Amino acid sequence: MLFRQLTIIGVGLIGGSLALAARKHGVCDHIVGCGPRLAQLQEALNLGVVDVIETDPVQAVSRADVVVIATPLSAMAEVFSRIKTALPPQTVVSDVGSIKAAVVASARTQLESRVAQFVPGHPIAGTEKSGVAHAFASLFEKRRVILTPLAENSPAAVSLIQQLWQAVGSQVNMMAVLHHDEVLAATSHVPHILAYTLVDALARMTDPKELFRFAAGGFRDFTRIVDSDPAMWSHISIENQAAILPLLQLYQQALGATCAAIQRNDQVWLMEHFGHAKQARIHLCE
Amino acid sequence: MLFRQLTIIGVGLIGGSLALAARKHGVCDHIVGCGPRLAQLQEALNLGVVDVIETDPVQAVSRADVVVIATPLSAMAEVFSRIKTALPPQTVVSDVGSIKAAVVASARTQLESRVAQFVPGHPIAGTEKSGVAHAFASLFEKRRVILTPLAENSPAAVSLIQQLWQAVGSQVNMMAVLHHDEVLAATSHVPHILAYTLVDALARMTDPKELFRFAAGGFRDFTRIVDSDPAMWSHISIENQAAILPLLQLYQQALGATCAAIQRNDQVWLMEHFGHAKQARIHLCE
Repeated sequence: MLFRQLTIIGVGLIGGSLALAARKHGVCDHIVGCGPRLAQLQEALNLGVVDVIETDPVQAVSRADVVVIATPLSAMAEVFSRIKTALPPQTVVSDVGSIKAAVVASARTQLESRVAQFVPGHPIAGTEKSGVAHAFASLFEKRRVILTPLAENSPAAVSLIQQLWQAVGSQVNMMAVLHHDEVLAATSHVPHILAYTLVDALARMTDPKELFRFAAGGFRDFTRIVDSDPAMWSHISIENQAAILPLLQLYQQALGATCAAIQRNDQVWLMEHFGHAKQARIHLCE
Repeated sequence: MLFRQLTIIGVGLIGGSLALAARKHGVCDHIVGCGPRLAQLQEALNLGVVDVIETDPVQAVSRADVVVIATPLSAMAEVFSRIKTALPPQTVVSDVGSIKAAVVASARTQLESRVAQFVPGHPIAGTEKSGVAHAFASLFEKRRVILTPLAENSPAAVSLIQQLWQAVGSQVNMMAVLHHDEVLAATSHVPHILAYTLVDALARMTDPKELFRFAAGGFRDFTRIVDSDPAMWSHISIENQAAILPLLQLYQQALGATCAAIQRNDQVWLMEHFGHAKQARIHLCE
């Protein structure tokens, strides 16, 4: 056992899966689930995801060894603000937010000197589903978790969060905050924005029903990420715009170059670039 | 049995799968596989995909009831030119090309008055693999096949090709040539171009190896179509540019609007458009 009490604030797909995984791997003695909506907490309790439920973050963290904030990004500032004075001095707090600069800024503002107890984290895992009903214990197995430790963090605090994720089967990498946000913009945020934009544009065309009727498996794969939560992705798009907008600009330029090559019937250019993409995906992605 | 001899010119993933499916469903008595490379034909023969192999298209079609051209698009003009004089008057020819205007133009030029024997077709099926080794009999089951009949076609010729595809489990739809090319540009060609362009652009960034290391399942789904054949997609991009380029322009405009909304922190706009995309995918795509 790594520690006694794990408190998870926000028991959805990610928070719920972490609870199930922590229990499965004997990481802690008991798990407290916290969130603003009693019905959702009750569901988590009924599903056996958490042992105790609590709507008040102050109560939920008061005896926690580790607190993981797994709420939507938009709710994190309030959570930091609520728990600040209730946080025991030895408790380590982490989060699962998919952007880090905005979360760290919010933590610094709200937690002030207690920000030393906050080790920012991001498990690169998830599905297009949300909600505790879709949580499962193996979600983080063989997945990467990025921690972006702060200068104020003690090595012991960072190590504890690292051990938590390793215990549930993840591989942990350390990264600078801004670098994390750039890497995720490229591999996650921008693809989501591109897919949302395509499906939205097609759905506004004449007879979209007919269009989609003839969509094959490739289109379904390409647009699967569109099933993700629009509110979450709107928030991410805005909060990580510093990393996202330059990449979208780069993408617009690259797409312009592709269009120009098509227009001048430049099969050689297209084969080189499409072939380069295929090789890159084979060598870098698998 | 619908007819006696099926000749498939181009025994790769699609041609090979059609042969396997035709045999499985008792569509014909025997199947002739034709192509320029003896080694590939020999593989098809060894795998039991075809009964007879033949490198000369003239010989291959001389006793065929139905000929299906399943070569790469770039090879079709030569096939039409080679088979023209050898084609018995009752033989019906079809193809599987994923664009139709260019194939029909080529068929008219090469086949001249015999174009009446050519019923253009396109099964909306495939995988990112190619080659006869990846062929399988169920590839077309519950998939759509679009036929774009010509004014010159006899109803009997169209009906025979329709029955062939229905016999292997496909649902057949009739469509005008240009409309087919627009629908496929939207749901297949443009997504491929967008995915190739993204992976190519990312692979040209600093340390792409690190980028891809942190790519999650969403990125893998989004970019799976990049595993398709670059030569085929370069060719399609150029040959169907009349339908593709206006859509890419529309997409550039839509992406510009998304960028502008991000820049002005317009969460309401983003939620409306991302949410619209999600709803469209749920209602139209499944």
